[in-house]
Amino acid sequence: RMLGRVLCTVLFVGALHCQAGASQGHISVVLLGATGDLAKKYLWQGLFQLYMDQVSSGHSFTFHGAALTALEPGQRLMFDVLKDLSCPPDEAPNRCAVLKDQFLKLSQYHQLKTAENYTALNREIESLLRQEGLEEAGRIFYFSVPPFAYTEIARHINSSCRPPAGAWLRVVLEKPFGHDLQSAQQLAAELTGFFREEEMYRVDHYLGKQAVAHILPFRDQNRQFLDPIWNRHHVERVEIVLKETVDAKGRTSFYEQYGVIRDVLQNHLTEALMFLIMELPANVSRPEEVLQHKLQSFQSLWGLEKSSAVLGQYQAYASQVREELQEAQDYVSTTPTFAGVLIHSDSLRWEGVPFLLTSGKALDERVGYARVLFKNRAYCTQSETLRDAGHSQCKAKQIIFYFGHGALDTPAVLVSRNLFRPVMPKDSWKEAVAQSDLHVFGQPLSDYYVYSPVKERDAYSVLISNIYHGRKDFFITTENLLASWGFWTPLLDSISHQSLRLYPGGVENQHLLDFEMVTGGLAFTLAEPAELLNPTRQMPSDYRAIQSKFRQSPLVSAWPEDLISQLASDMEKAASRSVARSGQFHLALSGGSSPVILFQRLARHHYAFPWKHTHIWLVDERCVPLTDTESNFFSLHSHLLQSVRVPYFNIHPMPVHLNQRLCVEEDRGTELYAKDIVALVANASFDLVLLGVGTDGHTASLFPRSENGLEGAPTVVLTESPVKPHQRMSLSLPLINKARQVFVLVLGKGKHDITTLLSRVGHEPRKWPISGVSPSSGQLVWYVDYEALLG
Amino acid sequence: RMLGRVLCTVLFVGALHCQAGASQGHISVVLLGATGDLAKKYLWQGLFQLYMDQVSSGHSFTFHGAALTALEPGQRLMFDVLKDLSCPPDEAPNRCAVLKDQFLKLSQYHQLKTAENYTALNREIESLLRQEGLEEAGRIFYFSVPPFAYTEIARHINSSCRPPAGAWLRVVLEKPFGHDLQSAQQLAAELTGFFREEEMYRVDHYLGKQAVAHILPFRDQNRQFLDPIWNRHHVERVEIVLKETVDAKGRTSFYEQYGVIRDVLQNHLTEALMFLIMELPANVSRPEEVLQHKLQSFQSLWGLEKSSAVLGQYQAYASQVREELQEAQDYVSTTPTFAGVLIHSDSLRWEGVPFLLTSGKALDERVGYARVLFKNRAYCTQSETLRDAGHSQCKAKQIIFYFGHGALDTPAVLVSRNLFRPVMPKDSWKEAVAQSDLHVFGQPLSDYYVYSPVKERDAYSVLISNIYHGRKDFFITTENLLASWGFWTPLLDSISHQSLRLYPGGVENQHLLDFEMVTGGLAFTLAEPAELLNPTRQMPSDYRAIQSKFRQSPLVSAWPEDLISQLASDMEKAASRSVARSGQFHLALSGGSSPVILFQRLARHHYAFPWKHTHIWLVDERCVPLTDTESNFFSLHSHLLQSVRVPYFNIHPMPVHLNQRLCVEEDRGTELYAKDIVALVANASFDLVLLGVGTDGHTASLFPRSENGLEGAPTVVLTESPVKPHQRMSLSLPLINKARQVFVLVLGKGKHDITTLLSRVGHEPRKWPISGVSPSSGQLVWYVDYEALLG
Repeated sequence: RMLGRVLCTVLFVGALHCQAGASQGHISVVLLGATGDLAKKYLWQGLFQLYMDQVSSGHSFTFHGAALTALEPGQRLMFDVLKDLSCPPDEAPNRCAVLKDQFLKLSQYHQLKTAENYTALNREIESLLRQEGLEEAGRIFYFSVPPFAYTEIARHINSSCRPPAGAWLRVVLEKPFGHDLQSAQQLAAELTGFFREEEMYRVDHYLGKQAVAHILPFRDQNRQFLDPIWNRHHVERVEIVLKETVDAKGRTSFYEQYGVIRDVLQNHLTEALMFLIMELPANVSRPEEVLQHKLQSFQSLWGLEKSSAVLGQYQAYASQVREELQEAQDYVSTTPTFAGVLIHSDSLRWEGVPFLLTSGKALDERVGYARVLFKNRAYCTQSETLRDAGHSQCKAKQIIFYFGHGALDTPAVLVSRNLFRPVMPKDSWKEAVAQSDLHVFGQPLSDYYVYSPVKERDAYSVLISNIYHGRKDFFITTENLLASWGFWTPLLDSISHQSLRLYPGGVENQHLLDFEMVTGGLAFTLAEPAELLNPTRQMPSDYRAIQSKFRQSPLVSAWPEDLISQLASDMEKAASRSVARSGQFHLALSGGSSPVILFQRLARHHYAFPWKHTHIWLVDERCVPLTDTESNFFSLHSHLLQSVRVPYFNIHPMPVHLNQRLCVEEDRGTELYAKDIVALVANASFDLVLLGVGTDGHTASLFPRSENGLEGAPTVVLTESPVKPHQRMSLSLPLINKARQVFVLVLGKGKHDITTLLSRVGHEPRKWPISGVSPSSGQLVWYVDYEALLG
Repeated sequence: RMLGRVLCTVLFVGALHCQAGASQGHISVVLLGATGDLAKKYLWQGLFQLYMDQVSSGHSFTFHGAALTALEPGQRLMFDVLKDLSCPPDEAPNRCAVLKDQFLKLSQYHQLKTAENYTALNREIESLLRQEGLEEAGRIFYFSVPPFAYTEIARHINSSCRPPAGAWLRVVLEKPFGHDLQSAQQLAAELTGFFREEEMYRVDHYLGKQAVAHILPFRDQNRQFLDPIWNRHHVERVEIVLKETVDAKGRTSFYEQYGVIRDVLQNHLTEALMFLIMELPANVSRPEEVLQHKLQSFQSLWGLEKSSAVLGQYQAYASQVREELQEAQDYVSTTPTFAGVLIHSDSLRWEGVPFLLTSGKALDERVGYARVLFKNRAYCTQSETLRDAGHSQCKAKQIIFYFGHGALDTPAVLVSRNLFRPVMPKDSWKEAVAQSDLHVFGQPLSDYYVYSPVKERDAYSVLISNIYHGRKDFFITTENLLASWGFWTPLLDSISHQSLRLYPGGVENQHLLDFEMVTGGLAFTLAEPAELLNPTRQMPSDYRAIQSKFRQSPLVSAWPEDLISQLASDMEKAASRSVARSGQFHLALSGGSSPVILFQRLARHHYAFPWKHTHIWLVDERCVPLTDTESNFFSLHSHLLQSVRVPYFNIHPMPVHLNQRLCVEEDRGTELYAKDIVALVANASFDLVLLGVGTDGHTASLFPRSENGLEGAPTVVLTESPVKPHQRMSLSLPLINKARQVFVLVLGKGKHDITTLLSRVGHEPRKWPISGVSPSSGQLVWYVDYEALLG
């Protein structure tokens, strides 16, 4: 009853009529966890801001704080918070005082513990609306509670608190949303049982930070300048950074489970990354378009590997964990508090551009930014000392979205003056007066156009406004969340026992955390000062590849990752030597699953591989169309050829598909391939043949007791496989044995038996075709991983 | 007789015996042009230095100055020069005084004008040697005369002054060696009539500059550091620069014919470039290996085009030329006095690395250097302001061979301290004490290891010593010379009427000569301040594309660049629409030269083009192997397919090459292609066909009065072209007319007549095949540039 009266007063102040019908409808906001830290610090203030902004919008509001605490103490706690709400500097003090008074009257505390509590809340909202004769526009439920409570609350809301048809429901969720792909999927599946996708608003408060939220509008409003340069030809690198000075003290129970990647990189920095790399939608204010383009960008990212990251931990962390979590003195934490991660996209726009994501605790300064550094394409003829003070094209060119803190101590957008004067919306961003003595990112501030927000707004207040406006692109959709976890989880898995660099914290870190791009990933620049944290794992005496003999030929053995890395390097060496000698490299590759990781490694880590002078041949092929996913060539194409620049003319798939039919003898595909080999490969002697071994001892598509290909002429043959698809095409053993080098790759426990057997038998190709591999004047090398070798 | 006595004295001083046989033999040095400027300034001093250095070598010497001047005045002129020879600071004054006295006595003037003069000189040398009982080691003839005199002198030397068998002849030639490929070939051919290749020493005095001469030894001695980084993965760019403050005043009669490219870039800067990019020979002190590797490097350079260079002329030049050459007031000089040139190598090592060569007169400072700038691959976690003073990996990394002058005012080698401490030969290079306040190349001098020569030596003195030692790698061989002219001549030809940027000269040039790498070449950064030298061309009132009708179909017309940009955008739109509709885009492309810029534009500017879903077909093909540079597919591959990601399976070259033969009817390539089209393209209706028009009205490879392809079934046909290669394969007109869209691209003045004609005639495909293009249910659009449209 009291509420009803207030509601009318409010509408009056807002210069609107109190009669039902004239209103745009009523909105009920329920803040769960109304007396918690986040609510105290940001959420109530954000709701008050929403009220101030929207009081004249035609909507009427009520605000319901809720918690587990009983009514009376809860009320007291909540109103203590509300009393302290502050008026923003740009608001007229009188108006604000009146509105604050009304806001307090429109706010009410509820204990929400049992199913009955929820039913009661629902009844209250309904009766209020009935009394006042108001239409219901919608309900916002803001979950500012620990995630373990989500399911229970979601169930109650779904069963008791849904608004009637025609009004919307919006539930707002705070992270963490799982701690890997599986847990995120599980959580998402549970919530999907209660809410529709469009009802869920997952908060990443970085999306509410003004400089982050302005990335897409900036790209949109400056299309004319950015279109020609927002690509790999002009961008040298992108850095996305969040540095903190605080450490994890007091929060280790949370932090020890999450670490810096889950805490910062997987969410905040990834979201900023997406805004930078996504293809710009035609209309950036259509949430669906933005969300769809963002999702597509995830598809273009290369998978992360152990070598993609450098990790550190500040020295005091371990003892803080032991103390706070009451762990034993020998407890070793492998949780990183610092990470640098190198990300690549294989989109045409960004191919080859390094995206460096960095975050850490106990660093030298608190600052966050996304920095796009452009290549210098200019030559300045005048000597530096004689150039005028203008903004020469030889100075660095960059665009920086400055999230806040740091030297500038305000959100900002910086654009080098030698790039362009950006278009910025005048109502929300103003040109800042440069402090001439300040240097940022290697240049005096006066080298930039600098813009800062007209009103500095807290991220939560921005987000609450966007919930009100239904701007789902400011929130994390389920698909987006799972794509992000799908991207980060393999790295998190692979580093779970990775060694960490210890750092003292603060300015004493000096160069200890500097890192560099090296072949295949990142590495700290300075050598490891101490190896305190290296977990010792069971392994042969040292990491280095075992070099010895297998079947009288050289053997390289190691864990799979090291083995593949060695094999790829050896292949590059062979290729370079061959190109130096003859100008060409003829490489014959096998199908199967083992080479896939090899192909990926070659594609991603071997920039110096002379692809332009390499001819790619197939060792064997299944009689299926080349576009069939079962085709060896298709797999080779997806994992290697698609990513490197082998000229079209140098690619030689086997002609299994001729005259619209597969491997028919009279189409003479085998002859055709043999002729091509003779025409292009000197002496029909491949520079390198890569083989695998089957559990039955087959190699290429030469199976035990095969009628073709085990003896006779060096040629190409059709064979029969015991498994589907039965028909195959293959190089013959005599042709393989003409090669200058043959590498045999054997991976996995499943190959242990055949490996053991092969170590004992002689030359018996009819029983075990692989035993017939013995290059007549070339070299044979075995690459066998520990599991295949040692079981 | 006097000479004979002196010779013995000399040998005594040199602590050698005077008896014949103990000596290593006698060397006669003949300096032609002994009283000219170069001789006065450098050559006599160089010969004196040679004498001082080699007096104890076991060789005895005589020095013969020669000129056209009569004996008596010539003698006087020459001894005036010799009197002024100076003693180097590192030589003991006493020893030097004695040696200078001897040097004067060993030097003699000769008038060399007639054949008899040469015979007499030869007789004198012979009789002297006989008298003294000396073996002859060799003769050096130094041509310090204008090149027009070369042939005459060479003839005389060859016929009258050759030493006897067993002794060598070395003739030393000064540039210019021609002014383009043809003249250089001619000059080389003439000289080859008189001298063997190993007898000729062509001087480029840059090869005697200490910092240039040390490039290869530096690379050799620092292999361990450079091997991993001396390549495209680590080098960002290379700048080779020679800036002069002087202008051409007083020398315009020479300069007006040569210009900066012939004067500096073709020789000095190109030589420095070669030392930087050549593959390092196993042994850098073997001249043959060095020369061979250098020659190979020329093969790797991309051909230069007009757009590879920016050119300028200082403002006073034109009036200087008019005055000195007595030209009329309306005389316009097109000789560049400033040039910046972008060079690319397609070697695996350097692919993609820009090499910028720059030189000019009337600039702000006198300086020369070759600068190798490395990429920054580091991320420094500590904020700049808090980093220690160490040599962080985030600072620039560079290696500079500083030829001399400029801020350092000495030859030097600079290596960034965050790269490595270089190995330098202690006897010839010393570490310089850094002047801490000096900044060079963007960094304080203290950021570098700086080395300067222990003895600063003049280039000519270095070269004269190398002539004596037979180090042919310090000179320009005929092959080397012709390779260099072969590289530069196409650019010189293409820019002969290029407009030049005028610059005021000196420090006032400011940013006027700054330039940038843009798509396909270089461009000045600042817009042209005045168009004094731009020939005004007739153009329609504004630049925007004209949109109207041509032959009842939509017409887009503009200047070529705008037209291509519009066409590329329209193609991307068509592709996106088609992929959205059917998941695929079937694009048939024509050969010829017009589409090349279109292909480049598509490759470089259209990142969002759905290549992954695009099928590429050929409209027509020449009956040559696909790897032949004449092949349409080869051109398409080089300019487009190599740079984008079209799946292998989606690329459909025409099967002109089957069974190792070309376009033989019974191989049924046309049927094969038609079958592929029917199998993959719905209704055999291409989504887009791109056509061109020949001056005879042909399109695709459908020529006027062709027997095949103008009517009948929608199929693929073999046709005959009136020009070579005659045999072609082509889509037929009825097949083209089934397309959903057909774009016709017409570029250039050469197409104006046919364009005009086409605007008047109707449907007459037998006369003008292009007039038969009329998609039955699709759309036709004409893209015609202003020159083709308006003439």
